[in-house]
Amino acid sequence: MPAKKAPSEPRYAIGVDYGTNSVRALIVDVANGNELADHVFNYPSGEAGILLDKNDPLVARQHPGDYVDGFITSVREAVKKAKKKRGFKPERVIGLGVDTTGSTPLPVDKDGTPLAMQKKFRGNLAAQAWLWKDHTSHAEAAEITAKAGKHKDKYLDKCGGVYSSEWWWSKILHCKRTAPAVFKAAYAWVELADFVPGYVTGNTKPETMTRGICAAGHKAMYHDDWGGLPSKSFLKSLDPALADLRDRYTTQAFPSDQKVGDLTAEVAKKVGLPAGIPVAAGAFDAHTGAVGSGVKPGTLVKIMGTSTCDITVWPGDAELADIPGLCGIVPGSVIPGMYGLEAGQSAVGDIFNWFVNHLTPAKYGAAGDAHVALTKDAEKLAPGASGLLALDWNNGNRTILVDPLLSGLLVGQTLHTTAPEIYRTLIEATAFGARAIIDRFEEYGVQIKEVVNCGGIAEKSPMTMQIYADVCNRPMKVSRSAQTCALGSAIFGAVVGGAYKTAEAASKKMTGVKPTVYKPIKKNAAVYEELYQLYKRLHDAFGTPNHADTFGDVMKKLILIRDHARKAGSATKPKKTAKKTAKKSSKKKGGTRA
Amino acid sequence: MPAKKAPSEPRYAIGVDYGTNSVRALIVDVANGNELADHVFNYPSGEAGILLDKNDPLVARQHPGDYVDGFITSVREAVKKAKKKRGFKPERVIGLGVDTTGSTPLPVDKDGTPLAMQKKFRGNLAAQAWLWKDHTSHAEAAEITAKAGKHKDKYLDKCGGVYSSEWWWSKILHCKRTAPAVFKAAYAWVELADFVPGYVTGNTKPETMTRGICAAGHKAMYHDDWGGLPSKSFLKSLDPALADLRDRYTTQAFPSDQKVGDLTAEVAKKVGLPAGIPVAAGAFDAHTGAVGSGVKPGTLVKIMGTSTCDITVWPGDAELADIPGLCGIVPGSVIPGMYGLEAGQSAVGDIFNWFVNHLTPAKYGAAGDAHVALTKDAEKLAPGASGLLALDWNNGNRTILVDPLLSGLLVGQTLHTTAPEIYRTLIEATAFGARAIIDRFEEYGVQIKEVVNCGGIAEKSPMTMQIYADVCNRPMKVSRSAQTCALGSAIFGAVVGGAYKTAEAASKKMTGVKPTVYKPIKKNAAVYEELYQLYKRLHDAFGTPNHADTFGDVMKKLILIRDHARKAGSATKPKKTAKKTAKKSSKKKGGTRA
Repeated sequence: MPAKKAPSEPRYAIGVDYGTNSVRALIVDVANGNELADHVFNYPSGEAGILLDKNDPLVARQHPGDYVDGFITSVREAVKKAKKKRGFKPERVIGLGVDTTGSTPLPVDKDGTPLAMQKKFRGNLAAQAWLWKDHTSHAEAAEITAKAGKHKDKYLDKCGGVYSSEWWWSKILHCKRTAPAVFKAAYAWVELADFVPGYVTGNTKPETMTRGICAAGHKAMYHDDWGGLPSKSFLKSLDPALADLRDRYTTQAFPSDQKVGDLTAEVAKKVGLPAGIPVAAGAFDAHTGAVGSGVKPGTLVKIMGTSTCDITVWPGDAELADIPGLCGIVPGSVIPGMYGLEAGQSAVGDIFNWFVNHLTPAKYGAAGDAHVALTKDAEKLAPGASGLLALDWNNGNRTILVDPLLSGLLVGQTLHTTAPEIYRTLIEATAFGARAIIDRFEEYGVQIKEVVNCGGIAEKSPMTMQIYADVCNRPMKVSRSAQTCALGSAIFGAVVGGAYKTAEAASKKMTGVKPTVYKPIKKNAAVYEELYQLYKRLHDAFGTPNHADTFGDVMKKLILIRDHARKAGSATKPKKTAKKTAKKSSKKKGGTRA
Repeated sequence: MPAKKAPSEPRYAIGVDYGTNSVRALIVDVANGNELADHVFNYPSGEAGILLDKNDPLVARQHPGDYVDGFITSVREAVKKAKKKRGFKPERVIGLGVDTTGSTPLPVDKDGTPLAMQKKFRGNLAAQAWLWKDHTSHAEAAEITAKAGKHKDKYLDKCGGVYSSEWWWSKILHCKRTAPAVFKAAYAWVELADFVPGYVTGNTKPETMTRGICAAGHKAMYHDDWGGLPSKSFLKSLDPALADLRDRYTTQAFPSDQKVGDLTAEVAKKVGLPAGIPVAAGAFDAHTGAVGSGVKPGTLVKIMGTSTCDITVWPGDAELADIPGLCGIVPGSVIPGMYGLEAGQSAVGDIFNWFVNHLTPAKYGAAGDAHVALTKDAEKLAPGASGLLALDWNNGNRTILVDPLLSGLLVGQTLHTTAPEIYRTLIEATAFGARAIIDRFEEYGVQIKEVVNCGGIAEKSPMTMQIYADVCNRPMKVSRSAQTCALGSAIFGAVVGGAYKTAEAASKKMTGVKPTVYKPIKKNAAVYEELYQLYKRLHDAFGTPNHADTFGDVMKKLILIRDHARKAGSATKPKKTAKKTAKKSSKKKGGTRA
């Protein structure tokens, strides 16, 4: 019997990915990105982790305690699973990276403890984390857009010219105006992407914690051109209290190849790892997802989940125009040394989930499984055969219109229109939205040579991928990893752990695409070209204020009427003049079956 | 014991009402309209009585055998039930009237027997009755509109200026072009409203049967001004074969206070009545419904069912403009001696049923009952609070746009939009459509002083009635009878049976409204006024070709793309380049849950 050859000891990195409804920890081999173990922790609070306000559909908050519990549980359980695999030892973990949703700011006290973890504020919606998809701050966003647009420092040129209600300053300003007690109690605000690395390395104090360039640059108007955050005088013009906040914010923000600190003994013990593991600066999930999908100049990575983020990079030394409607162009936000370009759609999977949860009849099964049943029927439909067309704005439009006060539109329904037809139409609508984004990149000189998709939808729905290929008339590739955001974070963990000198080098070794590529089908692409022309006309008419054929006010007026009606209270009882007996008999029935 | 006083012997009339899905026979007391007994027969063929073509949603046909069986069964069973009531004897039935949907033409042979009852044509869709809501003939309708518009006799001035795909000549011409074998085999065509009275009185021969003015005047361009039907030369300009048909059509059409004949012994025996009962000329259901609701000048009767017909009358000696967009202005078609004015909405209850059948989740119960559950939640909503707005065109628009190639539109949906919100919005959309009709009448000098509603929805949905009151900002009354169409036919039965000299006199005694009146609620009306302005903008933009802010081509283009896609066949399989294993694994899953 020949003697066993001792294998060279592998090294591992951990990526922790905070999504909208859950957090996932992933342990990978730094040599090749092989995924050893993972664990998902669903946020226990609210509705699928989101705290809602039934009187205001724009509210979306999260309890910070879920983030802390989520880190401990997901990493601990992933480590436990990994320990059952051959060759894994906790001591071989060399680094850890974190990514989160954003802009998701949390009000914190002087020590960096979230207000929501104080008894006094436990149930106060304003004291929670303001989840990225909270759209309550649209008025503040409009105000910031107007004021920043006039500022000499052109704060908005790098983020598409429009400041969003999803972003940092809008939310903080809205809190100041609508929940002054919370605002007053908050010593500072921190991004979730900075809070988690700070928390696990024991450095949460607002003034000293290390911040990531990704959140700061894309959402807080941070840029080296004007020395970090916007000037105090500009912030003062929004509200004097905002200017004070600037002093409680570190002056420099770092890309994710930089470490913020080492895992504390306390946290390490809870998760079953040795203390002292280096932790990388946090970034947004979409950005690490792009890294985990091998983003490079010419490659657009689409992270397709409840919403979609579209990320590409551009050489740091090449010419690059300011592109209107983009979410941001930030040096180093994705790959250090390159421009990170971010676009996105405010809702994609969320629209399909909405349809399944609210409008799908019993014959397609319960919520969740209904996706499969609807897809089965929808994939039999030829493009155009439903006669339907939709706008994908149920959660507003992020790119290229940057307007949260837009809403959905469906046209073409008859008395025979079926649920699978509408389901497919909603998927097509998001594909048209995706095409509008690609077109916008290319109009401004950023050529897209390759599209790599990742995330749940890219993994699970060949029909959706084929529709995207046909609508965009381009091949659609799918990232090899099913958890690219966590993988991207692990790549930064590998870099801060010393396995690679650069994120580019790490990404080359640790990422790839699946062999399956969805290619456009010529006759489908031709039909979708016709439909896209109609989509674009509705898009421009309903999405552009002061458009020549303008309906740009229609969705906004409906929202105004809605908000007014909801404030005014519930419905008035029917006003009938009737004899008692007649009243009684007409009350017995209900419904409008003809 | 005092001697019993012999009661004066009451007299009865029977109304037989052919609806879209069933036929109802009603026996009433001619003295006061009291309803003694009724029976409903559901058409057994097709889907709820309608023969569909799965490749063409515009097709809607019916099997004539259902009409014959429906008469026998409904009248026989109603008579049986009446016989159990005190005082009723079959010999006391003095007259019978018939109303039907329309224009519902049937191809017949020389004896007047429907082709569909011949073995050769039994399963041939073109040989069946072409139900009112069959919209296959839109191209022919457009052609007729164009040619008739230029004709010296202004054939269309009395029917809103636009000939409809729902009407007589469009359907016959479409049959000639698409099913020439059926057209050739047909000696003539008869309206359902004429076929039934002809059949039960033994006079079905096309050349000699007595026709009603209602169908002829509203749907076949019959008018005394040009000597009955359009000229042979005009029909020849459409197709020489149509000119030949003119000769097989009686030259005069009669209002429903005229009898067409007496019940044959054969039919009488089958239904349990004496032979020889006089039968009135047939009319459309909406028209007798108006009579059964007490229509008079200034009173608009809305017959609210799967679709809506809006009927009013105007003094025969008063001035009356030609009103664009109306379905018809025909002397004597409702009340002899008065102009009958007809408008309508192509789908009302049908839209609500569509939503229940296709888009209502399990929690609201099974189809049918879901109306009640959805209404329960929808009536809690304040006007405007959903942020939604819809166009009510799932089955095209009959009045005021007269365009079957329009479709539905829904705007304002978010990720939180619920089924009851959409359900209510669809009801509101039909109310906006109703208001557009009332406005059109009044713009042309036909004042509407009172609105009386009847039909299933008016009976069963107080919420809908309140919405209509609020949207139209007018009180909504409800007809006393729950079966006004059948009652109106019975009223004509009473007239031809000699109980009254005129339909007006009979109507005064035999009809009434319920004590319940829905009055507009001021604050609701204010919100709906705002929403109506938005509705009207979308209505004009999407419904008017060549409108300034034009989207008048969008729905039509979608239909063209749809029809082309359906002809081209089914979906193409996803086109992937992949290794076998990858292909297999991606096939395992489905759905787009994010």
